[in-house]
Order: sequence, then C-alpha cells, then structure tokens
Amino acid sequence: MTSADLGLLSAGHAGSAVAAATGDEAFLQALLDAEAALTRAWASLAGGGFHVPEQAGLWVTEAARAERFDLPSLVLRAREGGNPVIPLVADLTAAVGDRAAPYVHLGATSQDIMDTALMLVAHRALGAVLSDLARTAGALAVLAAEHRDTPMPGRTLTQHAVPTTFGLKAAGWRALALDAHDRLLAVRRSLPAQLGGAAGTMAAFSAISEGPATSAVPPGSPGPALVEVAESSKSSEGPGGSGSLEGSAGSGGGPAGVGPSLVAGFARETGLAEPVLPWHVLRTPVADLGGALAFTAGALGKMAADVLVLSRTEIGEVSEAAGGGSSAMPHKSNPVRATWIAAAARRAPALAAVLYGALAAEDERPSGAWHAEWQTLRDLLRLVGGAARDAADLVEGLRVDRERMRANLDLTGGLIVSERLAAELTPVLGKERARALLAGASPGQGLREALEQAVGDRLALDDLLDPTHYLGSAPALVDRALRRTPGETP
Amino acid sequence: MTSADLGLLSAGHAGSAVAAATGDEAFLQALLDAEAALTRAWASLAGGGFHVPEQAGLWVTEAARAERFDLPSLVLRAREGGNPVIPLVADLTAAVGDRAAPYVHLGATSQDIMDTALMLVAHRALGAVLSDLARTAGALAVLAAEHRDTPMPGRTLTQHAVPTTFGLKAAGWRALALDAHDRLLAVRRSLPAQLGGAAGTMAAFSAISEGPATSAVPPGSPGPALVEVAESSKSSEGPGGSGSLEGSAGSGGGPAGVGPSLVAGFARETGLAEPVLPWHVLRTPVADLGGALAFTAGALGKMAADVLVLSRTEIGEVSEAAGGGSSAMPHKSNPVRATWIAAAARRAPALAAVLYGALAAEDERPSGAWHAEWQTLRDLLRLVGGAARDAADLVEGLRVDRERMRANLDLTGGLIVSERLAAELTPVLGKERARALLAGASPGQGLREALEQAVGDRLALDDLLDPTHYLGSAPALVDRALRRTPGETP
Amino acid sequence: MTSADLGLLSAGHAGSAVAAATGDEAFLQALLDAEAALTRAWASLAGGGFHVPEQAGLWVTEAARAERFDLPSLVLRAREGGNPVIPLVADLTAAVGDRAAPYVHLGATSQDIMDTALMLVAHRALGAVLSDLARTAGALAVLAAEHRDTPMPGRTLTQHAVPTTFGLKAAGWRALALDAHDRLLAVRRSLPAQLGGAAGTMAAFSAISEGPATSAVPPGSPGPALVEVAESSKSSEGPGGSGSLEGSAGSGGGPAGVGPSLVAGFARETGLAEPVLPWHVLRTPVADLGGALAFTAGALGKMAADVLVLSRTEIGEVSEAAGGGSSAMPHKSNPVRATWIAAAARRAPALAAVLYGALAAEDERPSGAWHAEWQTLRDLLRLVGGAARDAADLVEGLRVDRERMRANLDLTGGLIVSERLAAELTPVLGKERARALLAGASPGQGLREALEQAVGDRLALDDLLDPTHYLGSAPALVDRALRRTPGETP
Amino acid sequence: MTSADLGLLSAGHAGSAVAAATGDEAFLQALLDAEAALTRAWASLAGGGFHVPEQAGLWVTEAARAERFDLPSLVLRAREGGNPVIPLVADLTAAVGDRAAPYVHLGATSQDIMDTALMLVAHRALGAVLSDLARTAGALAVLAAEHRDTPMPGRTLTQHAVPTTFGLKAAGWRALALDAHDRLLAVRRSLPAQLGGAAGTMAAFSAISEGPATSAVPPGSPGPALVEVAESSKSSEGPGGSGSLEGSAGSGGGPAGVGPSLVAGFARETGLAEPVLPWHVLRTPVADLGGALAFTAGALGKMAADVLVLSRTEIGEVSEAAGGGSSAMPHKSNPVRATWIAAAARRAPALAAVLYGALAAEDERPSGAWHAEWQTLRDLLRLVGGAARDAADLVEGLRVDRERMRANLDLTGGLIVSERLAAELTPVLGKERARALLAGASPGQGLREALEQAVGDRLALDDLLDPTHYLGSAPALVDRALRRTPGETP
Repeated sequence: MTSADLGLLSAGHAGSAVAAATGDEAFLQALLDAEAALTRAWASLAGGGFHVPEQAGLWVTEAARAERFDLPSLVLRAREGGNPVIPLVADLTAAVGDRAAPYVHLGATSQDIMDTALMLVAHRALGAVLSDLARTAGALAVLAAEHRDTPMPGRTLTQHAVPTTFGLKAAGWRALALDAHDRLLAVRRSLPAQLGGAAGTMAAFSAISEGPATSAVPPGSPGPALVEVAESSKSSEGPGGSGSLEGSAGSGGGPAGVGPSLVAGFARETGLAEPVLPWHVLRTPVADLGGALAFTAGALGKMAADVLVLSRTEIGEVSEAAGGGSSAMPHKSNPVRATWIAAAARRAPALAAVLYGALAAEDERPSGAWHAEWQTLRDLLRLVGGAARDAADLVEGLRVDRERMRANLDLTGGLIVSERLAAELTPVLGKERARALLAGASPGQGLREALEQAVGDRLALDDLLDPTHYLGSAPALVDRALRRTPGETP
Repeated sequence: MTSADLGLLSAGHAGSAVAAATGDEAFLQALLDAEAALTRAWASLAGGGFHVPEQAGLWVTEAARAERFDLPSLVLRAREGGNPVIPLVADLTAAVGDRAAPYVHLGATSQDIMDTALMLVAHRALGAVLSDLARTAGALAVLAAEHRDTPMPGRTLTQHAVPTTFGLKAAGWRALALDAHDRLLAVRRSLPAQLGGAAGTMAAFSAISEGPATSAVPPGSPGPALVEVAESSKSSEGPGGSGSLEGSAGSGGGPAGVGPSLVAGFARETGLAEPVLPWHVLRTPVADLGGALAFTAGALGKMAADVLVLSRTEIGEVSEAAGGGSSAMPHKSNPVRATWIAAAARRAPALAAVLYGALAAEDERPSGAWHAEWQTLRDLLRLVGGAARDAADLVEGLRVDRERMRANLDLTGGLIVSERLAAELTPVLGKERARALLAGASPGQGLREALEQAVGDRLALDDLLDPTHYLGSAPALVDRALRRTPGETP
Repeated sequence: MTSADLGLLSAGHAGSAVAAATGDEAFLQALLDAEAALTRAWASLAGGGFHVPEQAGLWVTEAARAERFDLPSLVLRAREGGNPVIPLVADLTAAVGDRAAPYVHLGATSQDIMDTALMLVAHRALGAVLSDLARTAGALAVLAAEHRDTPMPGRTLTQHAVPTTFGLKAAGWRALALDAHDRLLAVRRSLPAQLGGAAGTMAAFSAISEGPATSAVPPGSPGPALVEVAESSKSSEGPGGSGSLEGSAGSGGGPAGVGPSLVAGFARETGLAEPVLPWHVLRTPVADLGGALAFTAGALGKMAADVLVLSRTEIGEVSEAAGGGSSAMPHKSNPVRATWIAAAARRAPALAAVLYGALAAEDERPSGAWHAEWQTLRDLLRLVGGAARDAADLVEGLRVDRERMRANLDLTGGLIVSERLAAELTPVLGKERARALLAGASPGQGLREALEQAVGDRLALDDLLDPTHYLGSAPALVDRALRRTPGETP
Repeated sequence: MTSADLGLLSAGHAGSAVAAATGDEAFLQALLDAEAALTRAWASLAGGGFHVPEQAGLWVTEAARAERFDLPSLVLRAREGGNPVIPLVADLTAAVGDRAAPYVHLGATSQDIMDTALMLVAHRALGAVLSDLARTAGALAVLAAEHRDTPMPGRTLTQHAVPTTFGLKAAGWRALALDAHDRLLAVRRSLPAQLGGAAGTMAAFSAISEGPATSAVPPGSPGPALVEVAESSKSSEGPGGSGSLEGSAGSGGGPAGVGPSLVAGFARETGLAEPVLPWHVLRTPVADLGGALAFTAGALGKMAADVLVLSRTEIGEVSEAAGGGSSAMPHKSNPVRATWIAAAARRAPALAAVLYGALAAEDERPSGAWHAEWQTLRDLLRLVGGAARDAADLVEGLRVDRERMRANLDLTGGLIVSERLAAELTPVLGKERARALLAGASPGQGLREALEQAVGDRLALDDLLDPTHYLGSAPALVDRALRRTPGETP
C-alpha cells in the first residue's frame, strides 16, 4: 500500500491546475529546472580561471526532465540527508554523463536549489490562481452591475437591519477578489531566485571560478577590497542599475567575486527576480506568500460565507448552479463550492501562521524552521488554488432569486426601515414620541396604522414604508466600486 | 503530470508506517471497511420487517478491497458531491453485484462512512505512533539510568546556570514521551464509530427496518413512546450496561427504533468504541485527537530542541548516530532527525488549532468546518508519525560525550557554582560581603584565590568549587522518574 | 495616559468572576501566595543544619498581601530582569522586615514562583468556569427534556435534510458542555506546584539546608548514593506513596537532599498537586490547560453557532432572553451572548497553538517559549471564563419557538421526508421508479398527488408525509444522553 | 480586586510608547475622536435640508476627552449591547449638553466608530513602531559597516559550515528590519476611516440630510439614477479624483446621496484614508495590519534567534549591553531583550491567523468575526511595539566580541574551509582523491600534513587553510545591502 496522496481528502483542489502545478512531479521538475539554470548561468559567465562550456548547459537542460527520475527513490533518500536535493544531484550527475558531470550543482548548496524550486512552483501556481481571481472578479462585475438596484435585506448580527442591494454585496465580494489579486500579483513579481552557496557568502563560486589559490591577496582581504568594491559598485549604478555587484566584463569576478554575476545570470535563466542578498534565513518571500495566500483564502471565504447564508432553505436568495447531491435525499442541492471555499478559509490562516513563525530562523540555515515551510507553502498554494477555481465556477453559475429577496424584505413587517422611520419621525414628533411609537407598534398593518394616526398625511407613508425606497447610496457605491480594475498580469 | 504527493517535501515521515497507514489507498480501504462493517451489522440484527442476509455481509466484505477501485476517478468525482463517499457507494454497489447491491450503505449518510474511516485510519496510525513512543521511552530509560550521575551544565536563558546531570535531562525527555504516549493511548481507546443517518436521528434505519409504514402509531409519537423508552432504557441498564438503547431481541426495533442496536453492531464490527450519540457535529473525538497529537509533536520537539543545542559545534555534548551529510562540506554531520522533529513541532500546533476551530460547527452538518478536518487530521497524524519514528531512531543511536560535558562545566571558571558559593559564603561572611566577593572575583584562579583569602580553610574549597559536587537531587530525581511506566497498550 | 486594559475591547469577559481572578492584582497575589507558601514549607521541615522558624512563615504570609505592593512599579521593573519575580522578591524582602528577610525566596528560582502562581491563578479561575459549565449543562438538561419530542428541521450543509427534535440538539450541546467540564476538571486536579531551583536540580535547597560544605562525601557522588536512594525510595513506596523522595524524618535531607521534602510541603501549602519532576521545561500542565480551554471554547462555540443560525430573522426558532439593542434600529434584538461566545471560539484555538508550540523549550529554561506562555494562558482563561458565563446566561434565558419550528418543517413541501419516502416507496415501486417520482414531483400538493397516483392506499400517506412522524430515535437518544452526569467538582 | 491588566505578564511591552497608545484610555479617546470628527464632518457639509451648525463640531470636540468619561462603567455596559459605542454615545450625548446633543453620532452605526477608532489607534501605535524600526536599521547599518570584514563561523543546521562576516549577518538583520518598516509604512498609509451606516448603504445619512420624505422619486430608483451617477462620477474624476462620489457642491446630496461627501469629510477630519466602499465586512485593512505585524515580529525574531545563539556561554560572540540578572546566580547576564522579542515572535503569528480568519465574515456585520478582531489587533500592536523597542535597544547596545569569533573559527581544525579545500584540490588531485583526503584527515595539524604530503607547494596552504581568507562575497554583499534605505515616513 503506497502512502501517496492523490487528493481523496482534498477534493476542493483535486483536479485543478494548481494541484498539478504543485505535485511532487512538478516540484521535481522545478528542482531540475533550477539545476539546469545554474549550469547555464555558469556557462554564460565570461572569462575567469574556470570555464563552463555552453554545451554543458544544454546537456544538463536536456537531462533535467522529471519523468526520467525515480521519484519514489528520491523521496526515501531525501530523509537521510535532510532534503531531496542531495540524492537528486547524485542522480542528475549520473544522468548527464561524464562530459557534463563536472558542471552540475557547481558551488551551490541544497537550499539554493530547494528555495529556487519553491519559488518556481509558487510562480507557476500563482499564474493559475491569478487567472481564476480575474475570472471571479469579471463575473462579479457582471453580477454587481446587473443587480445594482436589486433590493434585499441587509443583515447584521444575523438580524435584518436595513435594505441593501445585491449589487453592492457582489461589488464588495469583487473588491476583496481584486485585493487578493493585486496582493498575489505583487508578491509573484517579487519572487526571487536563491543562490548563495553553503552559508550565503558565495565563496565557493569564487573558489571554483578562480581555480587554485595562488594569489597572495585573498578576495576578502579588508584593505583594498573595500575601496575597489566601492568603486565598482559606483560604476555599476548606471542606467537601470539596481545595485548590481557584477564585476567588470570578462573578468568573471573582481573584488566582489564571481557570485553576484552568477546570481544575476541564474535569476535570468529561471525567470525569477534577482535578490539583493541570499535569503536563506531572510524569509521575506515565503512570509509574503503566506500572508497573501491566507488573505486570498479569507477574501474568497467572505463570499462563501455569504453564499452559505443566502442559500439556506429559509432564505433562498441565491443558489449554486449545480449543487452537490445526496445519495439519500433526492431533493437536496448543497452549496458545495462555497463549502470547499469555506473549508479552505478555515485552514489557510493556520498555515500562514507557520510561515510567519518560520521567519525566526537561527544561524545561516535553521534546523526546522526552513523544513517546516516546504509542505506548508505547498498546502497553502493548493488550498488557494482550489478556492480560486471554485470561486470562479461558483460566481459564473450563481443563481440569484430577486423574488425571494423582495419577499424577505417584508418579513419584518416594515421594521426593516425602522431606522428611516426614526429619522423622519423625529423632526415631526420629537425623539421620545418617535421612539415610543416604533417600539410599541406591532409589525405590519399595526405599524402603518400607528403611523397614520400619528402623522396623518404629513409624511409620504407609502414611500417611507417601502423598503425598496431606502437603498441609500448602495447603487452609487456599486458604480464607484466597478471603476476599479485589477492590476495587470504580466 | 500528476498532482500526487509522495512525500518529496515531507521527508520527515516519508517511508514510515504511519505514512503508509494514512495514504489515500489506506483511507480508501478504511472507507470500504466501514461500508462492509455496516452491511455486516445489518445482517447481525435479528428480526424486523426487513432482513439483510448474512451472505450479504460476506459479499460486500469480499468486494471491499481498495486495490479494485479506481482511486483517481473517485478523487475527481468527490468534488461534485462534496465528499468521496457518494461516488464510492456507486462503485461499490456496482462491484458487489445485483444480489448484494440492495444491502450497501443502507440508511447511512456520507458522514457516517467518512467519520468512521477517519477514526479507523487514526486508530491504525496511532498503533505505530504508540509503538515508537514506547521505543523512545525505553531507550531514554536506558540513557537516563546510564547517565544518572553524568554531570553537565544546566543552562537557562542560554547561559550556564548550575550543574545538572544528563540523566535528569533524559528522564525529563522520557517523562514527556510518556505523557504523550498515555494521552494518545487514552484518545485511541475512545475513538468512536459514527452512525446516525442523514441528520443524526437514525430515522432511516427504522424506516428501512420496519418496511412500509402502515402502523397507526409512529415511533416518535410523544405520549406512550416516552413511557416505553423510559422503561426500555431502565431495563437496559443492567450489568455492564452503558446506557444502551437496543430494543428487545427479535424485534429489530422497539420504541427507540433499530438505530441503537445497529450502531452497537457497527461499532463491534469496526472495532471502534460505541458512541452515546451520533457525533456529526459533536466533534470531541477529532478535537481530542488534535490536542493529543499536537502535544506529542511538542513533547518530542522539546527533546529535539535540546539535541540541536547540545549538538552545536561549540557544545558538542551529543550527536546523532549517523548525521546528515552535505554534498559540499565533507566534514559536516547534521542533526537531521532532530531537525525533522523540530519541523513537525513547528507545524503541528497550527493544525490542531484548525481542529479546535472546527468544533464550532453549525447545524446537523456544517459547511466547511467538517471538511477542514479531513486533510488536517491526516497531516497531523503523519507529522507525529514521522516525529515519533525519528525520535526513537535518534534516541537509540544518540552518542553522548561525557568528556565534553565535563569540560564545558569549567567554561565559566567556577561561576557555574556561584549559587552554591553564595549560599555557603553567606552564613560565614554575611550576605553583603559574600555577594561582593562573587561579583568582583575574576573567573578561574582569581575566584579561588579570593575565596581562600576570605574564608581560609573554613570551607572545603575543593569540594565547593567542584561542579560535579553540586548536582543536588538530580540523581535521585532520575530514580523517581524511572519508576513511572507507560500506560499499557491494548 | 495609562496603558491599562480594563476590558474595553473584551466585553465578553468583562466583569466576570474569571476576569477578576486573572487580573494583575490577582496574579500578584498568587505570586505572593507562592512566596509565602515557600517560607511555610521551609518552616515545616524538621531537622537539617539550617532551620526556618515557624514564625517566619507567618510573618511572610502576613506581609504577602497584593494591595500593599506597588504594582505599576513592579510591572516596569519586570522588564529588566526578564520577569516580575525579581523585583517582587526585593519588595517582599523589604516588606517582611529584618527578622523574616533571610527566609524569603529561599533557594527558589523566579520560575518556581511564576509557574506556581500561574497554576494558582488557573486553579482559581477554573473554579468559576466549572461552575458556569455545570450551570449550562443543568439548564440544557431541562431544555432537552422539555423539547425531547419538539420537532424541527434537521439541517445539513445549510439545507433542510430530515426532521430532528430540539431536545436532541440541546442534548448534543449538553454533551459538549459536559465533555468540556470533565476535561477541565481533570486538568485542574492535576495542576502542580513548581519548585526546582535554578536549573531544576533542587541543589540550592540542600546547600542551604546543610549549611557549610564540610562533609567529604558530596550528595551526588555516584556509588553509594544510587544504592541508598534505591532503598529509600523502596521504603517510601508504602501505602499511598506516589514515588516520594522525602528523606527520613528529622534528617531534613538524606541522599536525595532536602528538595523533595520541601516540594511536598510546598505543594501542600499551595493546595496544588505534587510534581514528580520539576517541570520548568516539561510543560505538560500548560499544554494540557491550553488544549482543554480551547476545547471548551469550541464546545460552547458549537452551541453559539447553532443559536446564531436559529436566531436569524428568517428562521426565528430561538432567541436570547434579552438581546442586544441598537441605537439606530429600535426593532433589533441581537443574539449578543452567542456573538461573544463565537468570538471567543475564534480566538482560543490560536492561543492554544502558542501553548502547544511552547512545549519545544530548549535547555533548563528557554528564552522565549516560557515567556510566551504567561499572557497567552491568561487570555485563554479569560476568553473561556467569559464564554462559560455567557453560555450559562444564554441557555438559562433561551426562548424556544415551537411554532416556528413546526412551520419551518413545512417549507420544503414534504421534501424534508424524502429520505423516508424513498425508503418506503422502493419496496413498492422499485428503486428506479421511486427515485423518478420523488425527483419529478413538485413540492407540496403535487408531491402528494403523485404519491396517491403511484401507490394508492397501499401506504399510509398522511403518516408518511408528516414530518413529525419521522423523528427516528431522536427522543430516545435524548433519554440516553440525559443519563450522563458531570464529573464531580472537588 | 480589579481585573485590570497593567502589563505584569507582558513586560516585553510594558512602559513602551505603543503600550500607552493602545491602552483602554487611548482607545476610548480614539472612539471619542471618531465621534467628534463625525460631527465636524456633518458641519462641513454645505446645503441640504438638514444643517449641522459649525459650533456643534466644536462643542462635541470639546467634550470628547477620555478623562471625563467613566471607563469602568463603559466596560461593563459594553457587554449588553455588544460593543462599547452604544453606552459611549449615551454618555457623550449627555456630556455635550442639549444644544449639541442632536448632532452626536448622526446616522452612524457602532461599527463606524469602533472601526475608525481601531484604525486611529493602529495609526498612532505604528508611528512609534516605525520610529523604533528606523532606529534599529540605523544601528544595524553601523554594525554592518563596522564588521563588514569581521570573520566568524557561518553555521548551518547547528554546525560550522563556512566562514562568513558579522557584517553580513547584521546586514541581513537590517534587510529584514527594513522589509518590516516598509510593509508597516505602506499599511499605515492605507488605513481608512469607516462610515457606512447600519448596513453600509449610507442610507441614514441621506434620510437625515434630506429631511421628511416627500419627493416622489426615491434616491435609489433604477432608471435615471444610473445615468446621473455615471455623469456625476465622470465629472468627479478630474485632477486628483479617486472616484469620489461627492454630489455637486451645495446640494449636500445628489443621486448618490450625502453619504460619500460625508465620508470624504470624515476621513479628512480623522486623518485617515478615504475608503472606496464601507468595509464593515471587507476587512482588508485589518488583515493587512495582521500580516505586516506578524511579519515584523518574525523579522525581529530572526535577529533575536541569532543573538540568543551567539550569546550562549560556549559561543560568546555577542552579548547584550546590560543583560538581565538573576537573584540566585550573581554571575548571570541573560539576553533579556532577545528573549522578549523571541516571545513576541512566537505569539504574533497565531494572532495574525485570527485576523486572517476573520475575513470570512458573513452578512453586513458578522456575529463573532468582527468581535474577535478588537483585542487581537491590540495584542498584536503591543507585541510588535514592545519587540521593536527592544530590538532598537538591543542593537544599539550590542557588544560584539571579535576575538571569540576568530577563535571559534578554529574550533573545527580547518574543516570550516573544507568546501574550499575540496574545490581547490579537485583540479589537482581529481574528485575521488580529494574527497578521500578530506574525509580521512584528522582536523588540525593532521589535515595540514595530509595536504602538504598530497600537494606539496602546488597550493598556497597558508592561504587556503586560513578561514579569514574564505569570506567570498560577504563584504561586497554588505556594501550592496547598505545602499538600501528605508521608505520615508510621512
């Protein structure tokens, strides 16, 4: 019996694009992509005592296909060394053949490859999430415009409060979906490659690049290096310069060593952002992901919470296009998508808390904090990937029952506009009498009669008592909200 | 590319007994075991208008083998209906053939099967966890006894405080392992089967059992039923009675209906405890599991935290038998098991929080709270399963370096016994002079000379300054702690 | 402007017994109680080289009154040393006068006093919580019995499923309240005093007790000590012995040192349990508290979630006795107690997660894990204290509307018994035709006509279609559940 | 005994600026500030049927001083209505006298005032946090520059890996402090005022403003309103327009009603941002705060984790300027600030999880999700406020011991540069022989001799074996990192 998890307990994201983009096979591919990008980055370096042939990059890239590797074996061997990269490097080195073997994993540490792969997987998964969020926001814009003026009960603390419109509710859901979209988009663009070597000093890159140490002045010697780096960095802050440390062309090194140039090339090859510092223990990217993903789950969870309330048998104002069935009760149509989203919204915050907790990582690589991130981040991506898909499907098929909304407005026999009645009666009757009238009248016909008796025709009672005439700025707020557009996907 | 998760990011539990016991295939088997147990429970009921042949139980049991079912298809179909039981019942019904088809899933709701399967999986997984905890406690008992008197620095707030013994430390680890063992054992024994029908009233069981409704007096009618139930319940509280509601033999029902009898039989067939009430929304069993599992992760996490500190290059008092290697740095031997345990201890509390949160489940079945439990509970079982295995392996192979412990005791030049010096100098010199002496003396030889000058031979300085002579009750506390034995595994 | 928190943002527990029992003043008193108990425990020790006069215990007890101490000053000074005990000992020593000053805080470490005070505060606060839980369970027993047969819709995934009774719902709430009660009761009984000295070896106690070190054989010397302790421990396991390490009477020490005797006396003086080992870094008591408190919040949160659903304007089956008002909307009566409980249920699991996380505490005292517990545990006690009070008040005043329950049963036009109809039609019509009929008929009169056409008078349709005739074992389950009684409060 | 919490268990933030800015008194003042701003915003509206005199704004502002209100009474009365605003409005109305009473809390709902006050308190507290973070970053810049080339062991998984510099470590801490600073700064700038009325439709504002309803065309009527709003909004998108809905000047209303104009004025009066929509149940601001605060706690927690490691007795590379003392052990100097920060980093993520969870808020105001935010957000602000203060103090006084760093580099007898040795030996000896030599040689002199034997003078062994010559790009990375500056505080 294998221990594989195919999603039997996670139907919320089973079969989704994000599930596929975050599976073990996809993760293995990302690890291999990182290794291949590293060899290519080495090959793109000009000069230096040590040169990686351009061919080597091609050979490693060619060999780095997940389907050729023995995933179950890697899983088991990962345990011994503390991560899957150690056995993977062995297998990849064997796979590329003798001619390319010397150019695999050059100077890198396992964490360089793991973190880069995590970022690649996140980057790919977020593509699908952003697309589903944009789809959700698009469908909600249609719903909001369509129901801009559709009156329904506004509910606070479970009780009817004052009327609102379904359009305003949908516009609010959309605002949250856009908030989530824009946060994830910003985080996605910032996801950095990782390349620092054993303890983040990039020392091995220089040692490899420079060949045997025979120079009398070591690269890190205090005196002159400081001056030269200052100069080199000054010159590198030309047009478009973002503080690059690349040495002069052709040298493959310079006082800063070859590391910074290599990182720039590595970032380019992976398509990820170039980091200012190795971030082995500066986990801002992972924490930012955690926060934005938990936010997204919660933002969609708000919509799901509302759909669950409005779908109740007694309320019946909305329903999912094709609800979930029941084997025993033929009549049931359950709000199943909202349920999956609600479940994700319950799980995601705790996972984000683990990632925020992992910021407090001791040393140049921690024992535990880093390892706690891997599966946690994957779970978060999956939960949010499933929730975003379900949200888009839910909204695109949502059935809105205007009649039930209108009928429900009358359930309190006019008390749903008691706020308005109080406001309008006060100038006429004084605050005391106004309150007494409203508190004393029985809902429905009794209320109307009490009003007629008290104010006669001084107030337009038909208007005053009509809940659809007390929508306030709801329609206008819909218009305002709809002017916002999502941040652009790159 | 499949989305399967084989454990690439979860090496802490990859390949463990618990990983296998909690995989999708194992979970599918547990679902099938629950269905088969239900049919057998029906068959064991005597009398009633509707009878399930004994053969049916055998047929369903025979068909209910996970390897015959299409797991990936079930995963995908689970999404539509909201859980995997709905498609599974269809597949199982087809698999058993026409003769047994009418006896599959009789009167049950999906949650009955899901919850029972969750409990079965937890029960099975906990067997392995308990065994590893007992192994851990056993190895720690040996270590504690062996190092009962091995002096080492006691450390508080990262600083040397006073001496302790490694035996006392190991005895403390063992106390936590036993606490975890006993909590999990108690929870495991209490894990209940679930069988309540659509909304926990067991109504379908009676409807099925009694056949077409022609009787004039329905089972739930207030008047006489109340009396009869009271009588029946009274009689059922005979010897060994735990509040059973079983009707009289042969009737297949009685005023309480057939439900309670069926639940009793179902519990017997599954090997789980019989619940007092259906617990669809009374989630004590799941919350108890969550708490005991998070406790276990933390209890083992304490040991891991200590091993990580004591393994530091500068401290070197313990090391794992075969540490994790490094591709780049041949000299490294990392505390890899402690690292996996530490990672689990960081993740588990958040997962338990999700389960405690799921207690607040609305209605007779909630939308989201229940669904959030499934994968969360599985993840917790796996984290703890991996941590318990790693803890046992770690302890059984732990290398203890008495010499480093002894050497580290001297690092403060005698100040590690400053508490004792203060206590013993005070009666001789008075509090003020004693404190001044200790605060002013430089560690090492300076301290000794200051003491000689102050007290001459009034105190036995060799004894006083020897950190190995200030172990207090540590050895005796080891003896006391070792008298405790783990609760018995059933 | 002071930074004091009086409860403005925590109205859920403001003014409750638990709030008072957990305030800074109550905590200060508990710290002082621990100090006084320590001096009394010393005074009760017989023999030894060092003797604490019985009077000293009285003097310290007399001085140890919170109102005499400068709390704001203690708060500020706590920061420097890392906890409030260090300044408190200074103030207490000054307060007791010269004659008792030498007997304050003898041999103890700050953590001994802090932990003991935490346990005292928890013990006191839990008294009020248990009382409110018993009150809740009592009121729910009345509700469950009264509404044993009161039919109402059972709801799953927000939709009407099959009928149930309000009594069964109330019995379920009660089962959870009792689960919480019994868990808290067990934890409360186990709360231990803390007394271990600087690093948990009790070494200072012996050093103080024995006076100047002149003996040639130190207490921790390996050889003979082991034998003697084994003997002494054997003899101490007489009647009622729980592994006590007390030395022989009159010696004030023996090979185990005076520590164990002192701890036994200290536990007795505080009224807390005697621990097997000092638990400075064996945090089982705190984790157990965290789990049981989070469980309680969730258990009450289930009831609150149901009350919130059933109070909805559209459902109206229950309402709080005196709901919260609204300044603007005179008609509103909000379920305010259920709201406070629901808020507590959302916060408590995260706090428990912090406590479970704090189990992984390095060394003999950790830097951070311990400190994270203090306020977290207090917050949990307060949240649960408020929730328990609100739950009792809520239940005692809950208004149940039988008519609305009955009316709501008809909302689906008979489909709420579709499970029953399917079960009963199947033997008559076959599965296919039965399902087709139920899926095709329109609710209400249409359903009845379709049934009449299909089965004529072969089935008792009046009975079959009456939702109050399909309550299954609900009433009997109420009876069973009511047989359970809460664990006894000591 | 009062239940007040003065900080006895929270010494980490006791006495800090943030503690004062978040106390009940400060919160009460923020509530009053919100009420006063509302009256002033009304007074600043031109035209309309209802006019608030400018004097009223002054009268209310004058009366709205926290010290004049009975805080304990408000705390107790808050419970009944569900929040403290209801009793506060009563007290404030009484306080302003008859002439201003009609202008208090006009059209607002309690949540408008609560949320605005929460934002005001957060805004004020974050000012102090940002200042402390800037102070921290400043002191770290000095440390990083000063120790740019100070070699020390790089540590991974608790073991010495390769050398790094303390400057690079300090630069990493600074990068995290700046990340925290910039995230909090961005969130602080976005904190919005809240003003939506009972259910977020702003209906009461129009009702009040327009006076008795006599117009035949209600404000929310579909047809023409849509057109007019579109036009009005077009015109309002002139220079600097951010989608404002303000009606035409002098009208005090227009088709969108007076609400949007009032909100704009209210935001101006409070100094908070103007929201696009009422955000009663669109909790982005609170979730963003939660994420950024948890990030900050974790970012500072990384520094604290390192300080705790490096302060260990055996490592001794850094120490706090004035460590915490011990009553019993005169020699101890504990890293007390790092401890408080570490404790905060353990607590904050769980609190943020509560806030992310509160996003899933049903209806137009939820029962529980909103209420769970209040104290949670305050606790987070306080934890982070204390941690930021402690971080700044810690860094400003940190003592760095270059000699210990240098000495510790030699602890592995040359193996700390084994990565370099492998890289340099491989081209000379081949991979196999190089590895064999490094794995076989005993550390220290043995390693040197083995190297001499193998490579003679082909490699510069003095250079190769000197750990201070293997710093890689560490110094250059410090330079790069120091080029970053914090985002500007407004």
